[in-house]
Amino acid sequence: MQVETPAATKFFADRLAEAVERKRSQLVVGLDPRLDLLPVELRGDAHVARSAAADAVARFCCGIIDAVAPHTVAVKPQLAFFEALGADGLRAFEETCEYAHAAGLLVLADAKRGDIGSTARAYAAAYLEGEKPVADAITVNPYLGRDSLEPFFGACRRQGGGVFCLVKTSNEGGGDVQDVRLSDGGVLWQHVARLVAEWGEDLVGEHGLSSVGAVVGATHPRAVGEARRLLPRSILLLPGVARAFTSGPASALVAASRSVIYGFRQSGEDWRTGASGQAARLKSEIWAASGW
Amino acid sequence: MQVETPAATKFFADRLAEAVERKRSQLVVGLDPRLDLLPVELRGDAHVARSAAADAVARFCCGIIDAVAPHTVAVKPQLAFFEALGADGLRAFEETCEYAHAAGLLVLADAKRGDIGSTARAYAAAYLEGEKPVADAITVNPYLGRDSLEPFFGACRRQGGGVFCLVKTSNEGGGDVQDVRLSDGGVLWQHVARLVAEWGEDLVGEHGLSSVGAVVGATHPRAVGEARRLLPRSILLLPGVARAFTSGPASALVAASRSVIYGFRQSGEDWRTGASGQAARLKSEIWAASGW
Repeated sequence: MQVETPAATKFFADRLAEAVERKRSQLVVGLDPRLDLLPVELRGDAHVARSAAADAVARFCCGIIDAVAPHTVAVKPQLAFFEALGADGLRAFEETCEYAHAAGLLVLADAKRGDIGSTARAYAAAYLEGEKPVADAITVNPYLGRDSLEPFFGACRRQGGGVFCLVKTSNEGGGDVQDVRLSDGGVLWQHVARLVAEWGEDLVGEHGLSSVGAVVGATHPRAVGEARRLLPRSILLLPGVARAFTSGPASALVAASRSVIYGFRQSGEDWRTGASGQAARLKSEIWAASGW
Repeated sequence: MQVETPAATKFFADRLAEAVERKRSQLVVGLDPRLDLLPVELRGDAHVARSAAADAVARFCCGIIDAVAPHTVAVKPQLAFFEALGADGLRAFEETCEYAHAAGLLVLADAKRGDIGSTARAYAAAYLEGEKPVADAITVNPYLGRDSLEPFFGACRRQGGGVFCLVKTSNEGGGDVQDVRLSDGGVLWQHVARLVAEWGEDLVGEHGLSSVGAVVGATHPRAVGEARRLLPRSILLLPGVARAFTSGPASALVAASRSVIYGFRQSGEDWRTGASGQAARLKSEIWAASGW
């Protein structure tokens, strides 16, 4: 009797790098489905029942996926908007992820999770493990330190998952904690960047990139350059274009959410046409700006 | 025609303080439902289908609530274990919260959420807002700063919700970020504690306690004393007993999960009897140790 050996697990960073090069795109479309912003034709009874709202959200996300799939390497569903609809919302999240996978896209679950011990293991299991993981990568929070993220790194090693760790965020209050001055003269987020680089060292794939990436607010162009220097192997997930591609074409991803998925609200076009057009335009702009 | 005016919203901190004094208990039972640890009689087909697993989890959590309700002021369901079962798991979470409310308990959603802008608003809406909020309070992560938590504070003001912000955690890697030495000579978690005190200032209720609490790892007894000093108005959520009650009987809560809900695995008792006995014992020990 022969024992079937599973194909060697490919690192997330390599899967992503191959997708970026094949599609010539570093665009990630963020799926932030807010009921009040959905196309009117989809809303139906969404204001009455949660299940109808969740159906509308799933239809919207799947329609957007169809529209942007040729132009994007990944979608980034934001868990909060699905959780706001409870269990029905989580079902819409699962449908959305499955649909994105069927469309050949990677799925980055924007969850910003972080907890300890068996709780962290449960989060890793929820998103990155099992026979068919819901997502390919997940965003996480570094405040609880290395052992809180170890279960995610384990999923990266064993199942080819990826992690994007919050390092420097673009919101107004981001500095409250991230910009605190340290005794070494630097600031906290630089310390966190060094930790993330260290945590990702043994997850560097064939393309020279690690499956442990970093979320960096590109509204701070100097911070992006500094993060690139501190995190030479990490894939940076940025909310806008910046000089972050010096470690290769797949060394940064640019996430765009509202400008793509709610583009129709400005242009008056059909929502799918609007999303597709915006994604195509952004993809080209980013590729050109990346210098590859 | 008369317009009905809603009763003035009572602060979470006051609701909790009244429950603590009425029940003479500062015990919070953590609901961490791990399939492999459930009583055999509940497992049934839980290994086959997620919906059966979620049913088993809901039955377990409701049984534990019945068993511990006389001895505890709140339950703390850990979202990760429900999320690990997907949409079915989230339905079990909702059932559990509703059941706990019906049993007269407060619900602290252990979610450790933290995100920016409309995402943060969606998380606040998911757990603390609406006609019947799922939970009374939620654990959050401070890494993204004040504005990321403002939607939760808004829910505290308008709907009587509560927040427990991570400050100092008990896990091995907790120091990676939290113990970083700052230029002022202190360490990061002390800075975060001061921020949390500031954020909670305008949410102090009639009992002198704020609805913005703090999670503090009680495995560091000196840290608990220090946190108490830095956070005189905050309700501390601790994983064990410590000298934290100097700001009043409701100024700290002690969370116990596995020792209560899986007590039967040690004792061989019926799982409900085990949970009830452990909760009663802990409640008395904590009350005695609190010095009130």
